[in-house]
Amino acid sequence: MANSKFEYVKQFEQPDSLLPNTWIVVRIDGRGFTKFSAKHGFEKPNDKRALELMNAAARAVMAELPDITIAYGVSDEYSFVCHKTCALFERRSSKLVSTIVSTFTAYYVHFWPTYFPESPLSPPLPSFDGRAVCYPTVQNLRDYMSWRQVDCHINNLYNTTFWALIQLGGMDGTEAEKTLKGTYSADKNEILFSKFSINYNNEPEMFKKGSVVFRDYELVEPGTHNASMDADNLAEPIQQSKTQSENDRKRRAKARIVVEHLDIIKDDFWDRRPWLLSNKPGKVPKEP
Amino acid sequence: MANSKFEYVKQFEQPDSLLPNTWIVVRIDGRGFTKFSAKHGFEKPNDKRALELMNAAARAVMAELPDITIAYGVSDEYSFVCHKTCALFERRSSKLVSTIVSTFTAYYVHFWPTYFPESPLSPPLPSFDGRAVCYPTVQNLRDYMSWRQVDCHINNLYNTTFWALIQLGGMDGTEAEKTLKGTYSADKNEILFSKFSINYNNEPEMFKKGSVVFRDYELVEPGTHNASMDADNLAEPIQQSKTQSENDRKRRAKARIVVEHLDIIKDDFWDRRPWLLSNKPGKVPKEP
Amino acid sequence: MANSKFEYVKQFEQPDSLLPNTWIVVRIDGRGFTKFSAKHGFEKPNDKRALELMNAAARAVMAELPDITIAYGVSDEYSFVCHKTCALFERRSSKLVSTIVSTFTAYYVHFWPTYFPESPLSPPLPSFDGRAVCYPTVQNLRDYMSWRQVDCHINNLYNTTFWALIQLGGMDGTEAEKTLKGTYSADKNEILFSKFSINYNNEPEMFKKGSVVFRDYELVEPGTHNASMDADNLAEPIQQSKTQSENDRKRRAKARIVVEHLDIIKDDFWDRRPWLLSNKPGKVPKEP
Amino acid sequence: MANSKFEYVKQFEQPDSLLPNTWIVVRIDGRGFTKFSAKHGFEKPNDKRALELMNAAARAVMAELPDITIAYGVSDEYSFVCHKTCALFERRSSKLVSTIVSTFTAYYVHFWPTYFPESPLSPPLPSFDGRAVCYPTVQNLRDYMSWRQVDCHINNLYNTTFWALIQLGGMDGTEAEKTLKGTYSADKNEILFSKFSINYNNEPEMFKKGSVVFRDYELVEPGTHNASMDADNLAEPIQQSKTQSENDRKRRAKARIVVEHLDIIKDDFWDRRPWLLSNKPGKVPKEP
Repeated sequence: MANSKFEYVKQFEQPDSLLPNTWIVVRIDGRGFTKFSAKHGFEKPNDKRALELMNAAARAVMAELPDITIAYGVSDEYSFVCHKTCALFERRSSKLVSTIVSTFTAYYVHFWPTYFPESPLSPPLPSFDGRAVCYPTVQNLRDYMSWRQVDCHINNLYNTTFWALIQLGGMDGTEAEKTLKGTYSADKNEILFSKFSINYNNEPEMFKKGSVVFRDYELVEPGTHNASMDADNLAEPIQQSKTQSENDRKRRAKARIVVEHLDIIKDDFWDRRPWLLSNKPGKVPKEP
Repeated sequence: MANSKFEYVKQFEQPDSLLPNTWIVVRIDGRGFTKFSAKHGFEKPNDKRALELMNAAARAVMAELPDITIAYGVSDEYSFVCHKTCALFERRSSKLVSTIVSTFTAYYVHFWPTYFPESPLSPPLPSFDGRAVCYPTVQNLRDYMSWRQVDCHINNLYNTTFWALIQLGGMDGTEAEKTLKGTYSADKNEILFSKFSINYNNEPEMFKKGSVVFRDYELVEPGTHNASMDADNLAEPIQQSKTQSENDRKRRAKARIVVEHLDIIKDDFWDRRPWLLSNKPGKVPKEP
Repeated sequence: MANSKFEYVKQFEQPDSLLPNTWIVVRIDGRGFTKFSAKHGFEKPNDKRALELMNAAARAVMAELPDITIAYGVSDEYSFVCHKTCALFERRSSKLVSTIVSTFTAYYVHFWPTYFPESPLSPPLPSFDGRAVCYPTVQNLRDYMSWRQVDCHINNLYNTTFWALIQLGGMDGTEAEKTLKGTYSADKNEILFSKFSINYNNEPEMFKKGSVVFRDYELVEPGTHNASMDADNLAEPIQQSKTQSENDRKRRAKARIVVEHLDIIKDDFWDRRPWLLSNKPGKVPKEP
Repeated sequence: MANSKFEYVKQFEQPDSLLPNTWIVVRIDGRGFTKFSAKHGFEKPNDKRALELMNAAARAVMAELPDITIAYGVSDEYSFVCHKTCALFERRSSKLVSTIVSTFTAYYVHFWPTYFPESPLSPPLPSFDGRAVCYPTVQNLRDYMSWRQVDCHINNLYNTTFWALIQLGGMDGTEAEKTLKGTYSADKNEILFSKFSINYNNEPEMFKKGSVVFRDYELVEPGTHNASMDADNLAEPIQQSKTQSENDRKRRAKARIVVEHLDIIKDDFWDRRPWLLSNKPGKVPKEP
């Protein structure tokens, strides 16, 4: 029994390969997490367990997909970056997005009991949506990352103050919102300090900076290279030999994947970790 | 602190809305399931528990996303169909694909212990990829569904015979493959019957036909309507009033979602269930 | 000297095939025609020569590209329709759009001296832009055509009244605009009739209805068929044999391409010309 | 009479904006020029008049569309490059392609009698198709340009030898093809020189190098800048003020558009004309 009579339907599938030689960012977002976090009693303004669960899932995604160079997470969102030379799944957008979203979700659900042992999952379960975006230059990519980290800062400062007004100041949501309307960063810092003796600078780094996940190699002295320029000068996306990329993949697989809470806006972070932009694995640090 | 300096990066996101007034099929596939099924000792050629887990996850997806009209699953793949008038997520492809894939994965991992209590999950976890395809006419959509069900039949007949030769006939894989090379359906039926007294017709329906998931309303006498023609004649995708579609959504939410193993190639299945093509909820069957 | 070092750049070309089994409409629009028509003294509100030049160019496009089934023109725009089964240029959008736009432009410039012998072209020359849109059903396609013809009617009634107020009523543009603000069709008809003894119904059909271009075969008695339903039921776009489509192409090439000014909103036009929706060439009318 | 009933069809138009911050190349190609060139007796292997007509049309396109930075033509094809910051038509692909193709065609037909006074055009008229491709980096763009110029060289050397064998050597096409099969550049040079005393190096530059069209400003001393790096570092495509880009547009409009036959593969061409990659108009050369 041949299947040919119906096989014509395959022709309706449309190609969706992302433009070669561009950085691919897949950002995933929790669906309906306001409701979900209420159901499971997430602490406000930040729930350490929930963030660490996100980080654990992101780490697992990067372990399964060595083509991901770096990831950045804040709140219920995570951005995964593939190097501009990435050829995974022939750069097909749906394949990249769905694989990352699915893997992330699997680990999120799987690790859940470790982080929330007292609040087992029940339907509706947590889920995530995702999308892919291409960035042509290192500057565009770094501006994307900066955008997310600035957003993290703005939201966290707001939320920290908002919930202080409620939890410590006895306001309700409407009053807190009104109090904060039109305020600048300095005003919020001032409110926190003068009213609640909270020095925002002493808040946990994970809350203030979000989480950045990457493979760990030996740091490099800044100024000895220009990874950003090198990366932009890469022109031919598919020129690396199969052996070479196989080797790189193996070295990558061996490297430790770390979760840190660092400033990724300034040059320093990128200058000291040239492997992020060059896509050439660095030296594995010696064991202490 | 304004975020405007970096916000320009949002412009790089490209729209991906699917053509209006076309049927949307999102097909998801297990990633690396050959390895995964070996790791967890799936029975060959079909593992009832694994299929029922797939079905349970698909049912949950349909319960969470009432815009999905019907789903069809076989092996480690599932196809979800949204009606041509569907406006979910403004028909954005990545949003539809990622949400379905993520929700499916969440339930697959969550329900796993129910179906495989003796074989707990461990990394690498199961995951799925997905893609969306548009079909302009009912005939195209039905041909897609038929394509999957014919594929199910062809593969299952092959696999049933292949594994009978191995498990009951003592062959190894190479011998079994060689034996089946160039055979027709009739030959395989004959091998099963003459060598192993297996009447393929008596194999479980779920293995032979796959699983079809849909909302259950009262069946309709065939010939009293023409849902297919009505559906193709629908021209204006966004004309339904908000109230009406809200009502429909509620009725849909109330209907029981069933998993059956029926022939979806012949007209009968579709003729008796006009709500599948018309997108108008049917009558909820009276409780017995 | 091999070219391989640079040939990788070909990979950056991205596929743009239009969804199979959908009607393709390529609409082209004059660029900067307000200025262009002033430069060449087009008559207001309609310039017969300019419209006939558009029609001549459209006819020539259809003669060169037999895959185009029907075209509809009004003012400085023209819509060309390819049948849903069309496989021209593998349905690549840029190829279809650019070929139609280029062929149209070539004839427009070439025929110009025939229609405007006293006003030779000089830079900047007339040019057109274009885009392709897909319509899944006959109803969508016909609604598109109706949309353009209704637009023609609305604009022509407005312009006819506007220019009557100026040319016959001695108003300036601002006064005429003000007079017409908020008026309905009936009001404009009334102004034309009572002030200027113009019966709008007696205006030239080309101005009121625009121009429709198609291959001419023997008209068919309405009610003897249902071309629209037949067309929607076509599911498999590439099933016709090469011989058959070669034959059809030849018959099409022989048919006379006519320019008419008919109502294309009502069913009658389509019912009597089933070849437009069926894509099967009709009978060539006997010579008188 | 409202048009709203049909206006929903506008929703079927799908956005096609090209990725921001990438170089846009629109390449157009003559349709059926083998036949067309035979009809009008183009000289073989190169027809000077035909090439100069192509160049005149390209020059006119660049004069009408100041957003085009540089163009390169060979045979019946022309590539037009828009700077990566280009915002023309919101970077909509069909609009860019169709406008360039249409404008080019208009001038080609319009200028035809100047270059081929003795061979008036008649249907079928010359036409062109086109497509747009994005290149993320300067290197990619330059490799694209190099690809076209290398192609020009390869084809011209082949054609020059092929037609010498026929026109001077008395071979027919099949013999000439056979003679050239498997030969290298050196072999062809040798055939030309030893058999026909033709020194390929003395062939006209336009035939050997194709034609490059650009705005002419004062040349710059190489080594005083790095336009390529500057261009790649541009990150924010829409940051230039409206006044600034208006000014630039005016200066560009004033610059003379030249057609040259230069090596565009080597750095020198680009280094001495930094305005091509920087998109900042240079100094207008003093009149002699």
